[in-house]
Amino acid sequence: MNGPKVEVGILGATGMVGQNFVKFLQNHPWFEVTWLGASDRSAGKPYCEATSWRLDGVMPSMVQSIPVEECKPGNAPRLVFSATDSSVATEIEQAFASAGHIVVSNSRNHRMEPDVPLLIPEINADHLKVIPLQQRGRGWNGMIVTNPNCATMVLAMALAPLKQFGITTVIATTMQAISGAGYPGVASMDINANVIPFIGGEEEKMEQETQKILGDFTGDAIRPLPARVSAQCNRVPVVDGHMVAASFALEQKPVVSEIIDALSSFTSVPQQRKLPSAPQQAITYMPQQDRPQPRRDAERDNGMGTFVGRVRPCPALSFKFIALQHNTIRGAAGAAVLNAELMYSEGLLD
Amino acid sequence: MNGPKVEVGILGATGMVGQNFVKFLQNHPWFEVTWLGASDRSAGKPYCEATSWRLDGVMPSMVQSIPVEECKPGNAPRLVFSATDSSVATEIEQAFASAGHIVVSNSRNHRMEPDVPLLIPEINADHLKVIPLQQRGRGWNGMIVTNPNCATMVLAMALAPLKQFGITTVIATTMQAISGAGYPGVASMDINANVIPFIGGEEEKMEQETQKILGDFTGDAIRPLPARVSAQCNRVPVVDGHMVAASFALEQKPVVSEIIDALSSFTSVPQQRKLPSAPQQAITYMPQQDRPQPRRDAERDNGMGTFVGRVRPCPALSFKFIALQHNTIRGAAGAAVLNAELMYSEGLLD
Amino acid sequence: MNGPKVEVGILGATGMVGQNFVKFLQNHPWFEVTWLGASDRSAGKPYCEATSWRLDGVMPSMVQSIPVEECKPGNAPRLVFSATDSSVATEIEQAFASAGHIVVSNSRNHRMEPDVPLLIPEINADHLKVIPLQQRGRGWNGMIVTNPNCATMVLAMALAPLKQFGITTVIATTMQAISGAGYPGVASMDINANVIPFIGGEEEKMEQETQKILGDFTGDAIRPLPARVSAQCNRVPVVDGHMVAASFALEQKPVVSEIIDALSSFTSVPQQRKLPSAPQQAITYMPQQDRPQPRRDAERDNGMGTFVGRVRPCPALSFKFIALQHNTIRGAAGAAVLNAELMYSEGLLD
Amino acid sequence: MNGPKVEVGILGATGMVGQNFVKFLQNHPWFEVTWLGASDRSAGKPYCEATSWRLDGVMPSMVQSIPVEECKPGNAPRLVFSATDSSVATEIEQAFASAGHIVVSNSRNHRMEPDVPLLIPEINADHLKVIPLQQRGRGWNGMIVTNPNCATMVLAMALAPLKQFGITTVIATTMQAISGAGYPGVASMDINANVIPFIGGEEEKMEQETQKILGDFTGDAIRPLPARVSAQCNRVPVVDGHMVAASFALEQKPVVSEIIDALSSFTSVPQQRKLPSAPQQAITYMPQQDRPQPRRDAERDNGMGTFVGRVRPCPALSFKFIALQHNTIRGAAGAAVLNAELMYSEGLLD
Repeated sequence: MNGPKVEVGILGATGMVGQNFVKFLQNHPWFEVTWLGASDRSAGKPYCEATSWRLDGVMPSMVQSIPVEECKPGNAPRLVFSATDSSVATEIEQAFASAGHIVVSNSRNHRMEPDVPLLIPEINADHLKVIPLQQRGRGWNGMIVTNPNCATMVLAMALAPLKQFGITTVIATTMQAISGAGYPGVASMDINANVIPFIGGEEEKMEQETQKILGDFTGDAIRPLPARVSAQCNRVPVVDGHMVAASFALEQKPVVSEIIDALSSFTSVPQQRKLPSAPQQAITYMPQQDRPQPRRDAERDNGMGTFVGRVRPCPALSFKFIALQHNTIRGAAGAAVLNAELMYSEGLLD
Repeated sequence: MNGPKVEVGILGATGMVGQNFVKFLQNHPWFEVTWLGASDRSAGKPYCEATSWRLDGVMPSMVQSIPVEECKPGNAPRLVFSATDSSVATEIEQAFASAGHIVVSNSRNHRMEPDVPLLIPEINADHLKVIPLQQRGRGWNGMIVTNPNCATMVLAMALAPLKQFGITTVIATTMQAISGAGYPGVASMDINANVIPFIGGEEEKMEQETQKILGDFTGDAIRPLPARVSAQCNRVPVVDGHMVAASFALEQKPVVSEIIDALSSFTSVPQQRKLPSAPQQAITYMPQQDRPQPRRDAERDNGMGTFVGRVRPCPALSFKFIALQHNTIRGAAGAAVLNAELMYSEGLLD
Repeated sequence: MNGPKVEVGILGATGMVGQNFVKFLQNHPWFEVTWLGASDRSAGKPYCEATSWRLDGVMPSMVQSIPVEECKPGNAPRLVFSATDSSVATEIEQAFASAGHIVVSNSRNHRMEPDVPLLIPEINADHLKVIPLQQRGRGWNGMIVTNPNCATMVLAMALAPLKQFGITTVIATTMQAISGAGYPGVASMDINANVIPFIGGEEEKMEQETQKILGDFTGDAIRPLPARVSAQCNRVPVVDGHMVAASFALEQKPVVSEIIDALSSFTSVPQQRKLPSAPQQAITYMPQQDRPQPRRDAERDNGMGTFVGRVRPCPALSFKFIALQHNTIRGAAGAAVLNAELMYSEGLLD
Repeated sequence: MNGPKVEVGILGATGMVGQNFVKFLQNHPWFEVTWLGASDRSAGKPYCEATSWRLDGVMPSMVQSIPVEECKPGNAPRLVFSATDSSVATEIEQAFASAGHIVVSNSRNHRMEPDVPLLIPEINADHLKVIPLQQRGRGWNGMIVTNPNCATMVLAMALAPLKQFGITTVIATTMQAISGAGYPGVASMDINANVIPFIGGEEEKMEQETQKILGDFTGDAIRPLPARVSAQCNRVPVVDGHMVAASFALEQKPVVSEIIDALSSFTSVPQQRKLPSAPQQAITYMPQQDRPQPRRDAERDNGMGTFVGRVRPCPALSFKFIALQHNTIRGAAGAAVLNAELMYSEGLLD
């Protein structure tokens, strides 16, 4: 990339997901954060005053003095990342898209709408083709593109290379990090030395989003993958990194080594185009019997990797494995930034 | 019970499972620990010197001065609980059984042998009927009776009331406490704020033992339940309490409320005979959406309860739920003691 | 005690401290909870609906159907325990005391007032003698009696037996459990695998309250102990149990064994009168080099014990040690109940 | 630096401290690991086979195929870092120094010997002047230089800028991470949701080493700082990062802002010479009331920073503060590497 960087804004910049965007975008080769939006309450203050920084380390200096604005189109750059809370995301994101902005959102609100791509560049870059339908149908110059829920993200990435074998059933149990619940999020009295076997709405998201992500664009719609997907979601006392233990049934009968090969050799658009946030290797298969592990592996590949281990036959379905991703990077801020990079490489930001 | 208590011994008394037996048996209304066996290294020392007490609180005073003996038949009382390490359990337990002792074992060594009951009093009290076959076939006056692996125990108990609906498939993912690995067990550098997606041999045990436990005694053998069982086992940073998230398929088509009723109303021999270590309610169904939880629930019912929650339809199989037990009590020492209580109530200790 | 139990009420019953009172008072031999007060929002609902139970296990059945009332005198029994939030405690407690109630409070609001006892029955039972001054000065029929902050409590108890040697300086560093912050209290993102070296207001409380508790009643006032006390307070990822590492200077020059003897043999009014919540041994000295520990020791003695270990010379002052108590029992609900038991034994509740 | 890198070896390369050296030295601008020594058991195997990698992420590729040799001089490069266990460090390190090697050791064995520098480049670079005495006295061509214990390191760095005010008394309480105990180190059953108030030998090291480090080289000996130092050491469930809460007395009477200025402006040889592993800022003072924190701050500055917060008057001595360092980097491997960089910059490696 030559020339100046693309200016970007962040909607909901003071919250924990917003902070993750700020952190992930510092030193980005293509994008530069120049605009930060938050609630009325924060508007007018410099970012360093409006924000209680909750991430490891301290707030990047480049954003400290940027004044926070209200989440209204106007001064914001064309490309905005949305980290807005779901209670307000529908209205705010639609206002921006309607005003011509490209909204690359991490919020759940529009994910399951038929004309909105639920995008993972390695898996369904072609789902961007619904954008003209979205713009036409809604009368927008702008657009909304979404990335999946952080637990869906792990499962969808680990299953994508196996779609070729005909996935018919998936049963997944998650062990999810506390950072997935934001701040203050999970009370320490609830999770210290404990497991909470419930995360509101998460199982439904995993079941539905996985089908959409792995589905096919048929020219006028995204047809979901016709597989049965069942999820059980648990919170465990881990800081970062969502684990998914999954069993799945396949139409074809590959052997274990073919599954591992399919995972290890999986490569796609982000790798081919060398998108800046894409990991060199889309999926890393770990042959050790006790890996991946969230504390030891989630931060590898700049937090953008997907790690799979323990592929073995399942006595009940076809195979089982364990998969891991960094939930606030690959599962949230990094996912959206990679989506924007894909869109930039397609000329959609011009 | 009138008259003096039954004297009992503990094989492997200085290890962590042995300590759990000691703790669980203090103040037992029927049994009194009068003999403690351990390795040569400990023999001759009083228990308080031979043992580094690792459980919460301090060593019960009643056992502190009992001299530790070698694990050889001779002075030991007729009834011995075995907490021996699997590297030596085969030889030691057989020596005791051959010498006429009743060995109620928590070790894994004899569990899957066809003439050894893998006993859970609520589920398969009738499996004790293989004992005559065991004694005849091996030429023993004594006997060996075993209890299941601690992760199997949760799953088998939670499935037992549903056997009536025809269980055909079970897919279970565990989140297991560190106490299950003994002492020193899991290194803190491995598990602090982490998940380890592997426990050696555990998945095979869960898959095979569950089938045997839920199987039927046919008059001359135990026929395993013909269900496909698949397990994924994970270690999580929890002190006590194994959680199992399971999906399962049934032949019949009960509705959710029938499943919950079957669980809640499940009662069996230990409850009917009011065995001293049996929980009043065999299984407690928790209606809260985020329960059971290991830190908050495992110690209820004196650590002998089984807690199930979140029964709901499974999009892939029939239903799914989450289950919990205290792994070192109901899943180990308490399980063996309840087995001995059942045997006592059957007159097998006379 | 013969005759019916004394009826008691709890102010602020639905919060976490209130729940601790409810739990601690179940099966109490003298007191019976018959009245529960909380905010307007909860008033009118049965306790089980008004309260999200956050403690281990489930809500005691005896209180589930008691209707919650507003925190106003009227229907409440004469003796009320106060677990009210400090934002409202001043007004509520004074209203009750003014209306003739005996308010035994865990709130901080009145602790440092000169006419209010900051009571630990083992240490300063005679500070109750300021009550007539309080009643006369304020024109109350009732009274307010307080117990110290949970971190102060550990330090004061462990120092009390050493007062005889002339305490001149105390430097204490705490490692405090998350339960001390209530619910939701400390965010898991803040404390998981972390230490927070700050607890608002805690250091000042420890420094001032310790002086008052160890002070002498001179006939018309409580004269604080003229020792310099310095505290550093830290939150650590422990569920229950506050640890205090302290160095202290003494006027006299006892040897280590004299310090240990003074701690171990410490006995006082609650032990002599066998108050129901008093531990048999006021302070337990643990000779093991790595004890006490919060997870292993805090719950001993029904949570009412004080555990001290590692008494040794301090190269800078006279001696140093480590001390532990269960912060929500001995450091809060149990402390107040023991205060009420002392008052009952003095005839103050008649 | 021009020309080829300096070849370095690591003694005890397969252990956890050895692994930290390997990790810290990858991509080092001056030094290149070309030799790895370990016990007989490992000798002959490539490093990747001889070593169970315990650190986050995976083993650096550059060392995977280096064959491990026995810890004997011969093939090793002149400069060796010693991560040997203290049970063998005396013999091994002396053999290497005697054979002409420069041994930069993290082991405790030689730290307190009068002719061995206990070196922190920011504090006592001039202590290297005892080297000629060491070589003359012992008849060595080589030499041994040591860095302090990881808990000492935090305290000494945070006190160094205050030496100018005349330090007379220090009372320090640590909260230390589990990584300080190596692997397997602390059992999870001991530390999960717990505090262990004892670390063998640690308090004595902190008390003695601090005096030596802050002492003055008088021309023929290192005279220890004549301050009373008292330490209490605790293990807490934190992965990396040792915290020290300290109170200290000064001869002079600076105000708080002078203490903070002295800390913030502290700069020394490593900063002036821009040694590659030196943090830009020797000490970072954090003005937030609840910082530093181990999980959020220890890894900043590449793990080489020292973070101090909460400077305030101490009611018992002069001031108190909280300090933090990454214990396996600044407190171990990184400390030794910085020592070697200082020695290189002094021409001692020529």
